[in-house]
Amino acid sequence: MDKLSSLARFKASCPFLGRTQPASLRSLSTTASALFPSLTRLTEKATECPVMGPALAKRSGQQVATYASLAASADVVKIHQDKGVSVTDSDVSRCPHASKALAAARMAEELTAAKQRALSLKEAKEKAAATTAAAAGCPFAAAGAKASANAAASLPPGHPAVPGMFNYEGFYATELQKKHDDKSYRYFNEMNRLAKKFPVAHTADPKHEVEVWCANDYLGMGNNPIVLETMHRTLDKYGHGAGGTRNIAGNASWHLNLEKEIASLHRKPAALVFSSCYVANDAALATLGSKLPGAVYFSDSMNHASMIQGIRHSGAKKVIWKHNDLVDLENKLKEWPLETPKIIAFESVYSMCGSVGPIREICDLADKYGAITFLDEVHAVGLYGPRGAGVAEHLDYEAQKAAGQSSDPIPGTVMDRIDIITGTLGKAYGAVGGYVAGSSLFVDMIRSYAPGFIFTTSLPPVTVAGAHASIVYQKEYNGDRQLMQWNVRDIKRRFAERGIPVVPGPSHIVPVLIGDAAQAKAASDYLLAQHNVYVQAINFPTVARGEERLRFTITPGHTAEQLARVVDAVDDTFTALSIRRETDWRAEGGRCGVGAEQSEAVEPIWSDAQLKLGTPAAPRTRRDGQARYVDPRAVREARGRFDHLLDLLEPSVQKSHRNQ
Amino acid sequence: MDKLSSLARFKASCPFLGRTQPASLRSLSTTASALFPSLTRLTEKATECPVMGPALAKRSGQQVATYASLAASADVVKIHQDKGVSVTDSDVSRCPHASKALAAARMAEELTAAKQRALSLKEAKEKAAATTAAAAGCPFAAAGAKASANAAASLPPGHPAVPGMFNYEGFYATELQKKHDDKSYRYFNEMNRLAKKFPVAHTADPKHEVEVWCANDYLGMGNNPIVLETMHRTLDKYGHGAGGTRNIAGNASWHLNLEKEIASLHRKPAALVFSSCYVANDAALATLGSKLPGAVYFSDSMNHASMIQGIRHSGAKKVIWKHNDLVDLENKLKEWPLETPKIIAFESVYSMCGSVGPIREICDLADKYGAITFLDEVHAVGLYGPRGAGVAEHLDYEAQKAAGQSSDPIPGTVMDRIDIITGTLGKAYGAVGGYVAGSSLFVDMIRSYAPGFIFTTSLPPVTVAGAHASIVYQKEYNGDRQLMQWNVRDIKRRFAERGIPVVPGPSHIVPVLIGDAAQAKAASDYLLAQHNVYVQAINFPTVARGEERLRFTITPGHTAEQLARVVDAVDDTFTALSIRRETDWRAEGGRCGVGAEQSEAVEPIWSDAQLKLGTPAAPRTRRDGQARYVDPRAVREARGRFDHLLDLLEPSVQKSHRNQ
Repeated sequence: MDKLSSLARFKASCPFLGRTQPASLRSLSTTASALFPSLTRLTEKATECPVMGPALAKRSGQQVATYASLAASADVVKIHQDKGVSVTDSDVSRCPHASKALAAARMAEELTAAKQRALSLKEAKEKAAATTAAAAGCPFAAAGAKASANAAASLPPGHPAVPGMFNYEGFYATELQKKHDDKSYRYFNEMNRLAKKFPVAHTADPKHEVEVWCANDYLGMGNNPIVLETMHRTLDKYGHGAGGTRNIAGNASWHLNLEKEIASLHRKPAALVFSSCYVANDAALATLGSKLPGAVYFSDSMNHASMIQGIRHSGAKKVIWKHNDLVDLENKLKEWPLETPKIIAFESVYSMCGSVGPIREICDLADKYGAITFLDEVHAVGLYGPRGAGVAEHLDYEAQKAAGQSSDPIPGTVMDRIDIITGTLGKAYGAVGGYVAGSSLFVDMIRSYAPGFIFTTSLPPVTVAGAHASIVYQKEYNGDRQLMQWNVRDIKRRFAERGIPVVPGPSHIVPVLIGDAAQAKAASDYLLAQHNVYVQAINFPTVARGEERLRFTITPGHTAEQLARVVDAVDDTFTALSIRRETDWRAEGGRCGVGAEQSEAVEPIWSDAQLKLGTPAAPRTRRDGQARYVDPRAVREARGRFDHLLDLLEPSVQKSHRNQ
Repeated sequence: MDKLSSLARFKASCPFLGRTQPASLRSLSTTASALFPSLTRLTEKATECPVMGPALAKRSGQQVATYASLAASADVVKIHQDKGVSVTDSDVSRCPHASKALAAARMAEELTAAKQRALSLKEAKEKAAATTAAAAGCPFAAAGAKASANAAASLPPGHPAVPGMFNYEGFYATELQKKHDDKSYRYFNEMNRLAKKFPVAHTADPKHEVEVWCANDYLGMGNNPIVLETMHRTLDKYGHGAGGTRNIAGNASWHLNLEKEIASLHRKPAALVFSSCYVANDAALATLGSKLPGAVYFSDSMNHASMIQGIRHSGAKKVIWKHNDLVDLENKLKEWPLETPKIIAFESVYSMCGSVGPIREICDLADKYGAITFLDEVHAVGLYGPRGAGVAEHLDYEAQKAAGQSSDPIPGTVMDRIDIITGTLGKAYGAVGGYVAGSSLFVDMIRSYAPGFIFTTSLPPVTVAGAHASIVYQKEYNGDRQLMQWNVRDIKRRFAERGIPVVPGPSHIVPVLIGDAAQAKAASDYLLAQHNVYVQAINFPTVARGEERLRFTITPGHTAEQLARVVDAVDDTFTALSIRRETDWRAEGGRCGVGAEQSEAVEPIWSDAQLKLGTPAAPRTRRDGQARYVDPRAVREARGRFDHLLDLLEPSVQKSHRNQ
């Protein structure tokens, strides 16, 4: 759609738009809707209008967001009549038009609610005076929203095919309404991350580019040249899908090689790859807990949903201990006989708050009480340790570094003491998939018994090869990890200077505390619309109510200019939306460690010495316009590994994808 | 490893090998072990030998299969002493050497058992006289196996770190032993499917090529040029991983477009993509059943593991009805009040027997008793219906064909009557991933509540784009489906002529009945070793005991010559291993519909008219040396769609991957 031509059409038919300055209209037509970022703000406004709404609905095929289509205030009965369907006879509940009308009514309600939120934010009103005034000035807007809500309300949300039978569609609508009511309904932002412009993405509009500040492709490995080169070559040689389960035709050398690589990374005897780490955690915990007779899980209260599900699916007893609280854990462990099988399940880096589990101390308790340890390193693999094996490796940094790339366990190290490690290929390694690593017998038992491993198509060789290349590269090259941590320190310092409250923690996670669900969403929307900064709001149920936040992830690819700009943007947002700063939290007695009485300085996991600060080898933040730094030695090493693995390729294919 | 140089080394140190003919040795050194196809038969024999075993163990790093390493008869205590570890002090249970020794002992036992099986198969002994005689002739073999088993038996299978604590490793070993004891322990065959030689793959040895007859890349879409072209371009533009969950940075246009395409394929308002169809079934059934108050699942007794798990995870009541038995289903449905929420969960094509659910009749029962229908079309999408939407579409072939590529539902058709359809991207579409399609409210509820959808990294854009291209191509092009079904008819006819028993069914699945676990495994191994034909044995628990089979999947890519050869190979295998033929089953009263009294001819789903038999447009089986037939119109159409989606690409990149 050509925006200017539609602008002209809008102006011709609307008394409000006709009166508005061209510059304001242009601004409306080129910024994303805060609530529905795949729409422009102009389109958002137009959907509220009883005149424009139906016209837009007709052209909805191309432009509307998937989960909020634009039937708007159009009369549902009329739509049905136009389609030649009698509304009383048709099964409205199964009709796409009816659900579109419902979605439109809901959108109108959300728009009204959002506007009320905006109005209640005094600062925001002043800052964004021009645009909110535009909407407030339209005599049709409020009436339009009401009309569409009424049209939807007059519809039964689904009526049964047989009188007396259960109303399934009505029930789904009720369940969704709960999400709308408690503000946990999710609207997905549409983001297309551009390999050549990392960390930039385009939205639904390819010309609308934004900076991504919340992705989990922590090191930009999704666009690493070794990864892409390996994948192009594997794709040409082996095609796409694996073609079967691991047991039936879907077990390629790639899978076996990757598992050997992962085992070596964690210096464990064996590893097993799954569709995702959600599946790895779910399958491994469910199988382990259901097999071990009378097993008890000791689960950290902040564990990820996948671990919670796996433990639930095991049917085993579960004892929840307070997050990172060793005293609580020990008190709970000691209640059970020594001979009872016990599994302590916890994470290294907790992704939403950035806290880090006391791994060594948990190993001590496990030894004392006869438990085994299950450690999720999902947000740590690739990022900690001299070879990227995670926090468990990092805790013996020098010993692990000295051992080089040997696969042998190093007795007494924390990583060796952990029984089971799970990790992901989908975050720092920039791919997809997950894994468990542990003893040969443990891994073989999961391989032999877990339905979620056995009865599923294995990952495509091309995916597995890409992940493998990424691990190999990051095992060899420390620079990305170090630069990332340096950038994290930099942005934490900048935020602190402006009084932007960051939940303190020793890891790479930068959670900016907002402390209110509506404000968190508004801040995320404002950053996207006003500053082209994409950072997702994290609300209940992912975090507790009152602890809502913006979760920033900083990569080695973010430049000095981007870091400076994003801090300005967040500062502006805090001012515009009157969000509480560090001093406000201090006055309130603190929250989530922000503004607390005895706010101890948290020591980062990566020490100054490990970052080589004060030496010529210290990390340097990239600058705009600078090519991405790729270590030639790491590239050479990784390429060597894949030349070996891919020496089966025809030379012609090999050549065509090399050095692109 | 250079095989001839190791052969020379073997000969120098072994009295048996020194006496054997060079030709026999060459044959042993170039054929895969039947039990461990990643090893040569020569290596397999050598591991049994007390002299060669330890020597091989030293070089095991490079060559051994992942799940059966080669410490062989080496003394475990000695290995520990060599490593400077006192075996009485060290934690043997966590030591990789101990588990290697256990694996070696197990391998030795398996080899002995396999040999006994082989000896008991009279015909096999005669056919393979040369090679079995070689092993039987070795004075060291039996003693070696016994020695290694004894060495392992003297080890505790893991001893606890704290006296009195639970012996975890010992427990894992016990659970694995159960699998060995009931012969359900799985050894994975290593298969690398070659895009340019479909349906050929190479094993662990790149020079060892075999024909794949059991993959689920049913149409060879994993190497379709449109798929690969789209993937190369997407990879260059968007890199590898999605970088987050759908809610946080991982929701690209590709995901939304694919979901729109799938919804359109099934003519449903909405669809949702998951990591796999295992996850789709698990997440959708678990969420639906846990939400609907007092819901009851009515589950076909042959449903897939993923559906069984999803129903279990829902916590809802479950009633199992006899496979495809409408009378049993109705009797069970009528026991519940009309207002009770009921979900009938079933499949269209059952993948292990090839039977097909009575979809229309189940819809009738659902209407009568106020139930909704949940249909798994995993083994049908891409393969049935004029656009590949599955068996539900196929049942109204002409009406569905006449409606073309419209997304609108066709009231009264079977596909429209089904409430929820799940499908996979990992089989006929040659990619990976799964989905659900249904009403907007249902899909939105799953999207909003299913942890297995919410808390996982979304599939990479490159994967999603490849799957999307595949669906678009197969929606437009009927030729692959038709040729596949023609080839299926052809091989069923050829098998019938030789008296090879095929479980009768109307679908593309060709289950060759063996009826004995050991024989099924031996037949699969024999086909691989003697004929370079890879078809996996399907044993308990995947099928009932006594119903063991070889499950052949026939593709449009298999040539006339390959079809003829594979039938000869199976015929030879049946003779060599004395496997019961059709007449034998008839004499025994029949099994699985083979040789039954009143064996009615089963009508195939694809009719003669739908295959255009007797017209110039009838499918023609490919011949060796012929290029793969790709319909230029389908290519043009699919490329047009992706030119549109990828018009964001830089022209230079676009050019470099075009027409490769």
